[in-house]
Amino acid sequence: MTKYKLTIQYNGARYSGWQIQAGRTTVQGTIRQALERLTGQAISVVGAGRTDSGVHALGQVAHIRLDEAMDPARLQRALNGLLPWDIRILAARRVSAAFHAQKHALRKLYAYRIFNGPILSPFLRGRVCQVRQPLAVEKMKQAARLLVGRRDFSGFAAASSSVRDHHRTILRSEVIARGALLRYEVEADGFLHHMVRNIAGTLLEVGSGRREPEDMLRILESRDRRRAGRTAPAEGLYLVRIWYRKRQV
Amino acid sequence: MTKYKLTIQYNGARYSGWQIQAGRTTVQGTIRQALERLTGQAISVVGAGRTDSGVHALGQVAHIRLDEAMDPARLQRALNGLLPWDIRILAARRVSAAFHAQKHALRKLYAYRIFNGPILSPFLRGRVCQVRQPLAVEKMKQAARLLVGRRDFSGFAAASSSVRDHHRTILRSEVIARGALLRYEVEADGFLHHMVRNIAGTLLEVGSGRREPEDMLRILESRDRRRAGRTAPAEGLYLVRIWYRKRQV
Repeated sequence: MTKYKLTIQYNGARYSGWQIQAGRTTVQGTIRQALERLTGQAISVVGAGRTDSGVHALGQVAHIRLDEAMDPARLQRALNGLLPWDIRILAARRVSAAFHAQKHALRKLYAYRIFNGPILSPFLRGRVCQVRQPLAVEKMKQAARLLVGRRDFSGFAAASSSVRDHHRTILRSEVIARGALLRYEVEADGFLHHMVRNIAGTLLEVGSGRREPEDMLRILESRDRRRAGRTAPAEGLYLVRIWYRKRQV
Repeated sequence: MTKYKLTIQYNGARYSGWQIQAGRTTVQGTIRQALERLTGQAISVVGAGRTDSGVHALGQVAHIRLDEAMDPARLQRALNGLLPWDIRILAARRVSAAFHAQKHALRKLYAYRIFNGPILSPFLRGRVCQVRQPLAVEKMKQAARLLVGRRDFSGFAAASSSVRDHHRTILRSEVIARGALLRYEVEADGFLHHMVRNIAGTLLEVGSGRREPEDMLRILESRDRRRAGRTAPAEGLYLVRIWYRKRQV
């Protein structure tokens, strides 16, 4: 058995998210099929985290185990040859048998992209969340910064969240503006289901003047999902990068 | 009669080019249909230039005439409401009756985008020309610069070109590299059919070592289309901007 770490980029538009579901086209299922065509065997693909339907990834990570060792560069080329154009294996490397893409993830970076203007470029369609009314970017920046630290994020978790411990540590949380394009970047040791989209939705309400930056703290303190803003649309969300301890990779 | 200047952005992927053709979906035809739905009349749309099938535009320009004057902002909103997402009216303004989008164009800027690497991001698909083997960028830069000036561009015109005078003045011709993304920008007082794609195709042959930069001059001197490189694929080409005399706009 040889273990490989795959770094994967995908445009989530055509997929019902990462995780395999019966009767749906998913990213994990599509990679699994490519691996089955390549090796003739059913191979499980363990992802660092699930992305929801329509969410994109610039650097998702997964591990796989192959019965017969294969040169990682060959594995990568073969998979890219079998996969559809909207899923690309950016890197493949051999890792120790102990490596686990999900359990050993130290830190993840997500980005939420917003286009703030009346006319959405055809070249941004499906890749950003469009907000027509001008947003108060400075207030959004202030609001975003308030989330840094170790906190209970129950207020921003999906109502359906089944995880027990809702404490996570946000290392960086900032809104970056470049003309009409805004980008919320958030780096943490882990994320609850819908957490980034719920934060982004709340930041948009701050930007549109329906809330004050301090509301972010009130939502955290309440630990009540109903206090936060709407879940922002999937098409603006990108899983950008996942960090691991050097030893294990 | 009131005349309007429209600035138009489109993703050319779904279209058989700009110009109306029977039985094909074209950008001009699609805008014409939207205008017909808006006004109940057949309105001709005069573009600054044709773009081929699959070619994109960041700033195409067209003029239209309406029997009944309409507020330009309202016209713009109404058209964007009727047009599909991949065609957007970026601006609409009233112009003098003398304005002509094609005849009065002083200068145009085209860009040709190249991704130079083995793995094409799903987010660049259909928007760049991919070249897998490493390109000699410095040689491409040298070659591009050799085209500046007033010249006979017969060597780079489509074999089928029906225009008599093949002299054009290139004001700027440069290759700009940003990591694996290259961009050839060319600004001229006019372009022959396939001229940018033929130049781009020849620059790619210089980059891959099959030609020397000086070949650009030999092709110009020969005035023979067969001497130039292949026509580069449409998906990398963008009509970026068109300039007009201030008076007429």
